[in-house]
This record gives sequence, structure tokens and C-alpha cells, in this order.
Amino acid sequence: MTLLIKEILKLKPKNQLVTAEGWVKNFRANKFISLNDGSTVRNIQCVIDFENFDESIIKKINSGTSLSINGKLVKSLGSGQEVEILVENIKIYGESNAEKYPIQPKKHSFEFLRENAHLRVRTTTFGAIMRIRSKLSYATHKFFQNENFQYVNTPIITSNDAEGAGEMFRVTTLDPKSPPTKNSNVDFKKDFFSKKTHLTVSGQLEAESYALGLGKVYTFGPTFRAENSNTTRHLSEFWMIEPEMAFFNLEDNMNLAEKFVKYILNFILDHCMDDLFYLEERLYNEEKNKPKNERNGMKLIEKLKFIVNNKFERISYSFAFEILKNCSHNKKKKFEFLVRDWGMDLQSEHERYLVERHFKKPVVIFNYPSKSKAFYMRLNDDQTTVAAMDILFPGIGEIIGGSQREERLEILKKRMNQFDVSNKDLWWYTELRKFGTVPHSGFGLGFERIVLFATGMNNIRDVIPFPRTPNNALF
Amino acid sequence: MTLLIKEILKLKPKNQLVTAEGWVKNFRANKFISLNDGSTVRNIQCVIDFENFDESIIKKINSGTSLSINGKLVKSLGSGQEVEILVENIKIYGESNAEKYPIQPKKHSFEFLRENAHLRVRTTTFGAIMRIRSKLSYATHKFFQNENFQYVNTPIITSNDAEGAGEMFRVTTLDPKSPPTKNSNVDFKKDFFSKKTHLTVSGQLEAESYALGLGKVYTFGPTFRAENSNTTRHLSEFWMIEPEMAFFNLEDNMNLAEKFVKYILNFILDHCMDDLFYLEERLYNEEKNKPKNERNGMKLIEKLKFIVNNKFERISYSFAFEILKNCSHNKKKKFEFLVRDWGMDLQSEHERYLVERHFKKPVVIFNYPSKSKAFYMRLNDDQTTVAAMDILFPGIGEIIGGSQREERLEILKKRMNQFDVSNKDLWWYTELRKFGTVPHSGFGLGFERIVLFATGMNNIRDVIPFPRTPNNALF
Repeated sequence: MTLLIKEILKLKPKNQLVTAEGWVKNFRANKFISLNDGSTVRNIQCVIDFENFDESIIKKINSGTSLSINGKLVKSLGSGQEVEILVENIKIYGESNAEKYPIQPKKHSFEFLRENAHLRVRTTTFGAIMRIRSKLSYATHKFFQNENFQYVNTPIITSNDAEGAGEMFRVTTLDPKSPPTKNSNVDFKKDFFSKKTHLTVSGQLEAESYALGLGKVYTFGPTFRAENSNTTRHLSEFWMIEPEMAFFNLEDNMNLAEKFVKYILNFILDHCMDDLFYLEERLYNEEKNKPKNERNGMKLIEKLKFIVNNKFERISYSFAFEILKNCSHNKKKKFEFLVRDWGMDLQSEHERYLVERHFKKPVVIFNYPSKSKAFYMRLNDDQTTVAAMDILFPGIGEIIGGSQREERLEILKKRMNQFDVSNKDLWWYTELRKFGTVPHSGFGLGFERIVLFATGMNNIRDVIPFPRTPNNALF
Repeated sequence: MTLLIKEILKLKPKNQLVTAEGWVKNFRANKFISLNDGSTVRNIQCVIDFENFDESIIKKINSGTSLSINGKLVKSLGSGQEVEILVENIKIYGESNAEKYPIQPKKHSFEFLRENAHLRVRTTTFGAIMRIRSKLSYATHKFFQNENFQYVNTPIITSNDAEGAGEMFRVTTLDPKSPPTKNSNVDFKKDFFSKKTHLTVSGQLEAESYALGLGKVYTFGPTFRAENSNTTRHLSEFWMIEPEMAFFNLEDNMNLAEKFVKYILNFILDHCMDDLFYLEERLYNEEKNKPKNERNGMKLIEKLKFIVNNKFERISYSFAFEILKNCSHNKKKKFEFLVRDWGMDLQSEHERYLVERHFKKPVVIFNYPSKSKAFYMRLNDDQTTVAAMDILFPGIGEIIGGSQREERLEILKKRMNQFDVSNKDLWWYTELRKFGTVPHSGFGLGFERIVLFATGMNNIRDVIPFPRTPNNALF
């Protein structure tokens, strides 16, 4: 019976016959095959008595060769594994030219692997990353469903032009070379949807409309930004999780966000330890040669446990501002942007100072100055701050951003005007405040940010299967 | 303590104080408020002694008003509910003008509700549909994760021009009016991704590359078709589930597909009975006035149980062809497309005949003529059929389409040439066959199709929150 290698590795060895199928990671001394099928980071060692096999078969066994192996499961004599298979039969599925196969049994640069994104999941590192990514997705659904949320698919193609979250991609079926025109402008009435349409930058506004009927909802889908940002933190296409909850105020919102992020990190600590151990080692080896101040203070698993087991520090923007203004770092003018005037935007260096040096744990900052935040965030009674919150993580900065939403029609309209957001386009959004409006809140989490954090990787392009970035939409 | 109405309805009434928050469905006789919060299809009845409340508050209670109610939970004296709340306090959150609120306590046409898609989830019908949709999504993740699959996010923006599954939307940031040109053609090198890009029509090819490393994977994401189809069965943007499994042959594939679809339908029978009862009644009432031959033979829940409890009929295309060719329906020339020559495409009328009249249960047809199926489907030894399969459901036709994939490089290349699919664009796809190729299979399921089936709705626009169709991208 064919089992996953993950399952075989858990069996008690009793000389029973087992069949494993997978790809050869490594073949040494014409005797030891390390076989992997993607179900686990660990390989099963298969031991061949090469005198019993046709030379033509042995010759076909290279890194990357796919095969089915049948043999007896025994206690391993070697170190590094508890069981191994004494091979009785081999069936070759597909050969792999030892010289031409791009995934050699050696360390490849991540850049090279990105160019071979169709094969990179066969490496140990990417197998581990993608299994963790899958489990973080699943934990997300499990968490919200357990909390009585409904999953909502908000639209990807949108005619909302007004969200202001970033540059947008246009979606069209018009002839690119000679589009129909009217009064010497492109006539979008002739486009597929009879108007100009874009790829969504956020499902929040539509999710709000569903929360104001279903109560608690969450989205988990792709979102898009057409910014020309070539950094290790930006993708043009990424996945976002956006819960929206009727009857939640800002504190409920912060409680939920903290509970959520701890739940999904705890879930991989429960289900992905093999993968995490491997990535922890990888990161440790990578950092060994760096100067001490560039290394992570904690090892990967320790860091995840630290997040799960500690209460996040919650401080208002004003309190954060005071800390920063009065800290010796600021007084010694070591910040690039000096902290002087209340209302200034906190820069990444300030956030890192608070998280990594001052509190040494995740920090939630709430009640931000209203002028620097989006139109839909609820104005506080002080008239100068909004009920917004950001969760900041060590090493990675903002991981969650959210707010209580402005539910009062007149104030919302005023804010839309201030921010130059069209009332006409968002007629339906204002109607939500006209009929049975309720206090409600929500937040957004860029999924790849948390995968980056959980895997200890450095470049966001390495935690999504086929990254899309400026000038790159390969595969 | 505030509880969801779903939870309150399960409590034993002991005069305990409870708080419910939600939207007024109905207010009768100045005494009975039906309150709903989206957590369940059922409302909680709240009984007011109007003499104890300020008239100004009573006046604000209309359909759509949002409020918080506090009172004692008691056994209901009326019929239709077991418990009710004797109201002690009311807090109005948001009023709702009785005349202007679009969602009146009466039957609205589905067309009218589509124009008010931002509010329609507040109706009983759409609440039920969207909760079932959410649970079908969750069951999908649960099923595949339990079966050791990894969830994979394949790209939405793609430069593959070759999949041939349908018309595509272009994704661009070029100036629509005067795009850059080169040799009097649009210069897509200047576009965001330095080439022409589109919205994906399927994640299958990329999912295959991940299956050939991780073993078993599934996608669940949005896909797009730019066909100008204005029918009750087509959407321009819809969600698709696409599992791909290494080492699976066609029979394994059919087994998995049948198990999967039964699992998710069973899951809603376990978790959504209140919603299903409501939708069953709705459908029954709608159909009452139709002629008998246009009605469903089974009631909704009976139909779902029938699917879950019966083995699907599996027949080859050739066998299906013989049945159709020799049936009296064909001989009496009652098919629009007469069944005469082996190799013809089966039309919807043929599929319905097999499912609804001949076998009277779901039918899986496999081994289709190769010329009518896609290039990536595995050629059978007879050289004339491919290892493809379609699952056909009563009333809805094809619900799943899948195949064993062609894993042999030379045959794949030949098929690509026959189908005019560019080897150059899909270099990476052919490379999967060059290095460690293995037998593998997969299938696709249009998610809205199964939601349509499970809810007994008639128009696919009513089972997705914000439908996108030709000329329509509202909200």
C-alpha cells in the first residue's frame, strides 16, 4: 500500500512492506536514496543493494528522478532517521538529467530559484515555506469559522475608483491600439463592463456592507497595487485577510486581532514543527556570518512562541509620541526623522524603536491623528484623532492595520469631502449609514507579511508561489 | 452579556437577562419585534410593553432599524419560536426610514435585489445563501487539509496566453488613450510587467507545477472569463477550486472528486439545516405555480441527501454514446442535436437525458474523444480518447471537469502543436515533464455552480455577493 512519506516515517518498523513514491533528493554511494514526496520536510532513506538491481535502473537514479519504491521498513542503523526502507523493487517514473536539472543538491541563490519558480518548491526550503503558508491559510479559516464569522468573497474587478489605498491596475477588453473614443477621449462605455474598471486594492468597503447584515464576516483574497516598488516588502499581487464586525468597537477589534494572530502562529507551532526547525536552522546559518546587530535576537521558534505567549503592549499614538520624543535616541538625534511635533507620521525607524528597543514585544498603537488616516476611520470625541490601530511586530513593522469605522452619516460625508472621496461613486457605502447603521470595526492583514514573519525569510517574493512585481509576471 | 441570536435561541429560558443586537426584520402591533443579526436564519422575537417605553423610541422602530435589546429570556407563548425576550431596555443604533429603506418586509424581485446588492444580504433568502456559501468554502478547506493537501495560491495576473479556456481580460497600467508604441504597435514592453498580461482563466497549469513537488495541492481563488455571455449560468468573475495530485490516475481522480463533492454537501446538511429548510420552502413556493415538468422532482434537502447517499454512475463516453444513440428519445428525433456519430460533443440535452431520465443520479463520463478535449489531457492507449472525466448533476449539468494530465514529454509536445499552443510560452510547463515527471491528475469545480445547486437558486448572480457580468461591475 502506498503511503505518504510523512505517514511512513511515523510507522513502527516491523519488516512490513511499504511503498513510497516521490522525487530523489540525493543518491549517495550507489546505495542510499533520500526520497521526498512533499508531504514533509523529512526524506525517507531507501537502502539499495545495488548488486540486486539492473545497472540501467541504477543509472537513472539522479537528483530529481521520480520513482516508486517498494521494500521492507526497518529500524535505521544510520543516524538522522529512525526508519529506512530496504528496497526490493524500484519503478522509475521520470528521469532527470543530472547536469541539466536546475535543482541541484547544493545551495542555490534565492534569485536563481525565483527564475525557476516552477521547480523551486522541490527544494527543502520552499517545500517548508509553502506547507507553512498552507497551514497559516487553514488556521485563518478555522479561527474565523470557530468565531462564527462568515467567509465573504468581495469582488476582484471593481469600478470603485475612490478607495485611495494605492495605484490600481486597469482591467479592460478594449482594443489596446485603437480604442473607441468619444469626444476624443477613450469611450469606456464600450468597455466590457460599460465603465472603467480596476483590480481591487481592498475588499473592506464591500465587506462592511456584508457585516451590516451577516454580523461578522471576513475576506481572504487577492489584492493588487500598481506601485512601482521594487523592495523586499512589496508585491503587486498579494493576499489579504479583512475581517469586519458589526457591533465591535476599537477595543473589541484590538482584542480580536491579537487573538487571531496568536491563534494562527500557535497553529503552525502545533502542526509544522519539522518545517519550522528546518527554517530556523537555515536562518541561523544565514545569519551566523552577519555582524551581531543585524542578527535576530531570538531564534525563529523562540520568536513565534514569544509572540504567542505575551500580551501585546497597547499604547495611544500620543503616548507613543511622548516616549519617542523624550527618548535619548531622539535627543541624541539618532533618528533620521526627529520626533518633534505631535501629529507627525511615525516612520519605520520609530516603530522599530518602540517594538525592538523600548517594549521589546509587539506593540499596538491606537488613536492616530485623524489627518493621516483614511476617511472611513471613526472620528474620536477629541475631534483630532481617529479610532485606528496598528499592530507592530519586531523585524517586520506593521502587520495589521484596522479601525472602528465611521458609522455616522454626516461625519462620514464630511470626511469624504475632506479626503476628496466621491460621494457619487460610493452612494451605496453611505447608504449603509442611512439605514440601520451600527458601530462596527475591522482590520486588514497582508497575508504574505505574516508568512514572511513565520518562516524567517527576508524577501516577500519567496513566500508566495509565483510573485508578481514590476517587470515580472513570469509563469 | 451580548450573545449572537443563534446562541440565544439555544438557551434554556430561565428569566435570565440577555442582550441581543441586530436589525429589525419586522415590528407588528407595536409589540413584537423580530430581530435578526445575521448569525442565523431565525429571528428572535422581542416583546415590548409599549406603555413602558417612550413613544419617541417606539416610533424609531421600523424594518431595518438597528438596535440593542436587553431583557428576560422566557418560554414563548406564541407559536413559531421556543423562546422570546421580554424587553426591558432598548438602545437604538441606527434608524431606517420606513418608506425609503429598499428592503421592505415583502417579497422583492431578485433583479431589484441585485441592484441593491449592498443591502440584499439583510434579506432572509440572501442571508441563508451566503451562510451556506461560507460553509461550503470552509468544508472545501477542511476536506483537502484532512486529506493532506497543501493550499496553493496560483497567480491571478498571468502572462500565459495559451491556456485556451476562454476569452481573457487584459491587465494594464498603460495610458488608455495614447499608449506607447513601437513600429506602430502598442509597446507592451512599457507596460507594468514589461509584457502583455491578463487575468487568469485557470490556475491549473501552475498548480500542476506545485503538485510535482508538494504531492497533493489545491487552489481556491478567483478566475475570469471575458465572454459576452448573459445567461443565468455565467459570471465574468467566479471562484474555482482546482486540486492537482501527483501519482493519481484517472480512477483515483474520480474517487477523490466524488468523495469531495459528497463531503461538502454533507457538511452543510450537518451545519446549515435551518438555512436549507428556509431555502427549500422558498423553492417549493416558487415552483408551486409552474407546470409539473418544470419543477424539481425532489425537494432541496432530499436532493442533497440523494447525492450524498448514492454512488455516482461511471460510464465511458463510448457507453454514454451507445445509450443515447439507441434511446427512443433519439430515435423519435426529440433531441435537437441527433446522436449519430461517435466523437460528437455531448450537448446539455444529452447530459440531462442521461442524468435525469436514464440513470436518475449523478453520472461521471470518462474517456472522451481526444479531439474535443484540452491539450494537457492524457492520451489513452487507444490513441483516440483521453483520460478525461466530467461529473454531471441533475438540473445543473457539468459540475466538475477533470483529467489525468499528459506526463509524457513527447506526446505533450505533439498535442500542444495540434492545439496550436505555444511551446515557447509554456517552456516551464514542458520542463515539468523533462525532470522527474510523474503520472498526475486533477479537476476543477466552479464554486458558484455548487452553491447554486446547494441553495436551489436559479441564477448564478444570486449566489455570489457582488456579481460581475457583461456591462455590470456595480459596487
